[in-house]
Amino acid sequence: MRRHPERGHYDFDTLAAIIDTAWVCHVSFTLDGVVHAIPTAHWRMGEYLYIHGARASRMLKALTEREACVSIALVDGLVLARSAFHHSMNFRSVVAYGRFETVDDTAHFLESLEAFIDKVAPGRWAALRPVSDKELRATTMLRLRLDEASAKIRSGGVKDAPEDLDWPVWAGVLPLALAAGTPVTEADSQVADYPHPA
Amino acid sequence: MRRHPERGHYDFDTLAAIIDTAWVCHVSFTLDGVVHAIPTAHWRMGEYLYIHGARASRMLKALTEREACVSIALVDGLVLARSAFHHSMNFRSVVAYGRFETVDDTAHFLESLEAFIDKVAPGRWAALRPVSDKELRATTMLRLRLDEASAKIRSGGVKDAPEDLDWPVWAGVLPLALAAGTPVTEADSQVADYPHPA
Repeated sequence: MRRHPERGHYDFDTLAAIIDTAWVCHVSFTLDGVVHAIPTAHWRMGEYLYIHGARASRMLKALTEREACVSIALVDGLVLARSAFHHSMNFRSVVAYGRFETVDDTAHFLESLEAFIDKVAPGRWAALRPVSDKELRATTMLRLRLDEASAKIRSGGVKDAPEDLDWPVWAGVLPLALAAGTPVTEADSQVADYPHPA
Repeated sequence: MRRHPERGHYDFDTLAAIIDTAWVCHVSFTLDGVVHAIPTAHWRMGEYLYIHGARASRMLKALTEREACVSIALVDGLVLARSAFHHSMNFRSVVAYGRFETVDDTAHFLESLEAFIDKVAPGRWAALRPVSDKELRATTMLRLRLDEASAKIRSGGVKDAPEDLDWPVWAGVLPLALAAGTPVTEADSQVADYPHPA
């Protein structure tokens, strides 16, 4: 964190809030000398970040055998300055390092899956068709302890050079945020109305 | 692309549209045996993906000396099925491999920076205070040719098991998209109204 040290944040609550807001992380690792990155859904329970996938996945198998880097970014706005050089982006990001471990315990697996479903739609877990043994066997869940992680945040307005402030161009921030649209109900859904208001 | 081969897409227009829609990519690389991933803004011009940063950046220097992996993901919706197992996400992602090269030519640098500003706000470049030599010298621009890149897309509705279709829970998709809020004008902006309608 050599440039913009004011953008570095390390307290756990800040990390957790970014991780919980994001739907997708990017998991990087080296396999046979090649760096790979895989975008995948994630969730958090306590001090761990979780991902999951098909039991047969080579990527998930490989991840437990080497160090990984997890990267998350949320875009919060475009910062439009008077000069191209001072244009910027408001964002919140997290980068975490470590080795994933497999979640083998069934009770732990189900508790964590419930946390994931509750992130997607609070309270939904109890209404779902219960997880079958076959589904359990087909799924691998991994978790990474958030020991070595840091956050970076840029927020606020334009930072132009003093001599540029009277340049005749609009200066300001265009806020950006992931927004939910109108729920699209399946034709054969047994319940007509989306029951999970934001 | 062994699982869900129907989600694999390789034509350039598909790749380009995802890259152009996203504001941030994740650049992964190995340095001294450790995998790193850096979220950073990107843009595209022709068959190249561009990033930039401070000239003094160790990361940018290192990138031209080794292979990198660039990962981009856009979240398009939450897919809520009758079982936890069939929950999914609608998304568009790109993963690209290769080595970044430095953009040293000043005309190329300026043309590409204009393309970036035009991505942020079409037509804005001509209204800005021109780039100074000092700014040029302080900035490193890198580009990656999109030769080895692929896209993955999941779209559409819920795919539940036939025996679950009458389970009494709402099933459908909650669309998600990055949306612009109300522009926030700087107090000392010489132009009062945001001039770049979406």
